[in-house]
Amino acid sequence: MKVHHASVTLQGEERVEITDVTKLVRTAVHDSGIRCGIAIANALHTTCALFINEFQSALVDDLTALVDRLVPSAGGYRHDDPRYSDCERGNADAHLRTALLGRSIALGVSEGDLVLGRFQSIIFAELDGPRQRAIDVQIIGE
Amino acid sequence: MKVHHASVTLQGEERVEITDVTKLVRTAVHDSGIRCGIAIANALHTTCALFINEFQSALVDDLTALVDRLVPSAGGYRHDDPRYSDCERGNADAHLRTALLGRSIALGVSEGDLVLGRFQSIIFAELDGPRQRAIDVQIIGE
Amino acid sequence: MKVHHASVTLQGEERVEITDVTKLVRTAVHDSGIRCGIAIANALHTTCALFINEFQSALVDDLTALVDRLVPSAGGYRHDDPRYSDCERGNADAHLRTALLGRSIALGVSEGDLVLGRFQSIIFAELDGPRQRAIDVQIIGE
Repeated sequence: MKVHHASVTLQGEERVEITDVTKLVRTAVHDSGIRCGIAIANALHTTCALFINEFQSALVDDLTALVDRLVPSAGGYRHDDPRYSDCERGNADAHLRTALLGRSIALGVSEGDLVLGRFQSIIFAELDGPRQRAIDVQIIGE
Repeated sequence: MKVHHASVTLQGEERVEITDVTKLVRTAVHDSGIRCGIAIANALHTTCALFINEFQSALVDDLTALVDRLVPSAGGYRHDDPRYSDCERGNADAHLRTALLGRSIALGVSEGDLVLGRFQSIIFAELDGPRQRAIDVQIIGE
Repeated sequence: MKVHHASVTLQGEERVEITDVTKLVRTAVHDSGIRCGIAIANALHTTCALFINEFQSALVDDLTALVDRLVPSAGGYRHDDPRYSDCERGNADAHLRTALLGRSIALGVSEGDLVLGRFQSIIFAELDGPRQRAIDVQIIGE
């Protein structure tokens, strides 16, 4: 039984940008040499999301529209008001969207690979970029 | 320390159908012989959800009504529009509802059983059925 | 490789109350003696949430306002109607808000500590208190 620790970094170009990071996480699993176990991946931030869904461009548009509707950018948030917060980015929308989408995944590893369904991709959603971001990956197994 | 891998399959009868799958996941834990560790379970799909809550029929109705209100079935989604997607199921609603509810759980295992609170059930929400579905279960521990 | 199991208890004072529990979970990791691996933490309830975000008071207000807007307290829920449920607390709002926010985290452990980004806190959201609550923590690694 062993533990493997990896860090994946990403650099986006837009404020909101949705990326398929399956290959990056899969590579960390391959590098680990672990054949059977568990992999977890965590975005080490509070204004970007990490989750699993189908990565299809029209669906990505729908997902962006959904979080924009549920959590409007101009929502009169206190976190964006200098009277209540010293955050100067005006990014409450990104924090709240992250709370709805999640920023962590836990997957099985079997036969040396991630256990993913046919249409499943690991999706990273930058919600307050462009910034450099880190995803922490831990794999445990044998 | 050992790793146990199991696959649970489900076959529903309705497009939207919410089921208590606690026993199915619990059986996988018992079969593993692992007494203390971690269990993760992942639905291997992108249009059904897996999460923990109380399984009470009126609450299940409330949950269905909530996702229907937040993500209406007829939402004019691009994923459902043949100009932007070759998906013929018109199931963007199911993808987006899955993004809100989650499709993965991670639980402790102690004394050979899942660590669940008194009112907690593992709930599978079919959101684009009826279909056969698979839940991947990985248990690691000793 | 070893497994460490801990239970963290909390007692709030309000119906809705959001608390930074990072230190409590971190202490469980330190107590385990595990240097490298995975930690998972689960709230053993269905009306309180556990997730990671920035713990900043104005943002906490925004988060409370968001769930209040998406899941109003007086939503005409069936779970709150004695014709359909024997729950006497009228707490459907708390169940549904928990379904949106999540009640479980999975984190890496490295160099004997939780792997958290600079602005990340582990946040416990009591949504139907005041009550005594338990968080189950499992740590696995070496």
